[in-house]
Amino acid sequence: MTIGIVGCGLIGGSIGLAARANGHSVLGFDLESVVGAVAIERGCVDEMVSFVEVAQAEIVFLCVPPSAVVSVASELRSRKGPETIVTDCTSAKGPIVRWLSSANDPNFIPGHPMAGHEKSGPKFSSGWMFRGATWIFTPTPQTSKQALKKVESLVAEFGAKCVRVDADRHDYEVALLSHLPHVIAAALVGMAAPLDSTDASGGSWRDLTRVAGVDPGLWSQILLANRESVVQVLDDFKSRIASLQETLTNQDIEAVEAFFQEAQKAKAKQK
Amino acid sequence: MTIGIVGCGLIGGSIGLAARANGHSVLGFDLESVVGAVAIERGCVDEMVSFVEVAQAEIVFLCVPPSAVVSVASELRSRKGPETIVTDCTSAKGPIVRWLSSANDPNFIPGHPMAGHEKSGPKFSSGWMFRGATWIFTPTPQTSKQALKKVESLVAEFGAKCVRVDADRHDYEVALLSHLPHVIAAALVGMAAPLDSTDASGGSWRDLTRVAGVDPGLWSQILLANRESVVQVLDDFKSRIASLQETLTNQDIEAVEAFFQEAQKAKAKQK
Repeated sequence: MTIGIVGCGLIGGSIGLAARANGHSVLGFDLESVVGAVAIERGCVDEMVSFVEVAQAEIVFLCVPPSAVVSVASELRSRKGPETIVTDCTSAKGPIVRWLSSANDPNFIPGHPMAGHEKSGPKFSSGWMFRGATWIFTPTPQTSKQALKKVESLVAEFGAKCVRVDADRHDYEVALLSHLPHVIAAALVGMAAPLDSTDASGGSWRDLTRVAGVDPGLWSQILLANRESVVQVLDDFKSRIASLQETLTNQDIEAVEAFFQEAQKAKAKQK
Repeated sequence: MTIGIVGCGLIGGSIGLAARANGHSVLGFDLESVVGAVAIERGCVDEMVSFVEVAQAEIVFLCVPPSAVVSVASELRSRKGPETIVTDCTSAKGPIVRWLSSANDPNFIPGHPMAGHEKSGPKFSSGWMFRGATWIFTPTPQTSKQALKKVESLVAEFGAKCVRVDADRHDYEVALLSHLPHVIAAALVGMAAPLDSTDASGGSWRDLTRVAGVDPGLWSQILLANRESVVQVLDDFKSRIASLQETLTNQDIEAVEAFFQEAQKAKAKQK
């Protein structure tokens, strides 16, 4: 079938590569011509076309930054073909689901591929990015089951495992399991900035700060799009840290040990 | 030379293996006979002997848990040979340096090998553990330069890089670069315990929680021994998290972006 990609960066480019590897035609659109040129050179798309042409594809992947996703989704809604299915790839589903409640489009499937890379742009795209990755969909009561199945069966061709969850639950879990770790990593490296060296560090520091260098423009948008859930998990996290701190101040060794025991138990279950 | 090991667990066992590989004789002592049996079976020591015999070795490594280090150091002080040098391996130097200010022993060298493993016991020991690792010493004004050099030259044989720093600075840096990451990892997995699954997680979650399963008994002792510095870094960490949370609540995109920009800059310098 003919696939459209709006926004041919890391994710859009990788979707294009995976779709072409499975025999589909891929039309791309990007506001920046230099991104389009790299996408063509890397073989992510068959050709770069106009926004209106991309909007006629059978399935359009909306791969724009979080701050633009609702306005581009609206624009697509008014220009797309009558049978065209659109699915987005942003990591907070709340804004899109709220928009859908008024746009009421059964052929718009809110989605989130759990994949990425610390570098951005089509230069780093890969047709293998979704192999074994979870691809989450957060359908609303209005979502067409048929359209959802069509998108799921396409991304299954890319090697992804499809999961359906409620948008609120998705946003909370992503805030906890991905956004919070990124905030922590960034806060940690900032604290060590005044040190002459990090010679006294070992494996734990290396691991906890690996994702500290992510793109500031993209990540500020990601956090703001999901700010309600992120603020909620930050509250919970802060009180856990404060409570451990209190047990340390009180030299309550049993409570400190219980904190690590709970962690050890939770860790064993998460493997 | 003859090396003594008091406490033949993971670190003591690894020191024994490294010393024997470099042609030294190794005498071990442990309160638990089962630990001694494993240490002999693994070749960590030439023989297990009494506390008083170990105390006559040329250099004695004190590798007991943090809560026991000061009392065992005192015991060693009154039993050891007149030329015997003692060095400990605990990760907080404050308690030992405070004890030294009254014990006033120029032949006691406070030390901290920056190495370890998420499993404990001589079963997991390795003679390679210190290759390329930093071994920190925090001498006091009373410390014998000659004794310090003798210990440094021995652990250099194990492949370690020796660094001398002030005990307070050491304790602050270790609190920041090692103890804080372990607290964070434990707090994180505890937050995810109520979830049915962590399917929505990716590489950042895996990395930030790797060290969450560490030994609760050992780690509660480590934190308590260094509680002043740990409480200080927890304060700083909490306010960084709170300030990021405030910028999110206020939807101050520039401030959120600045937070990640500072991190990106710090991360680049730490590599």
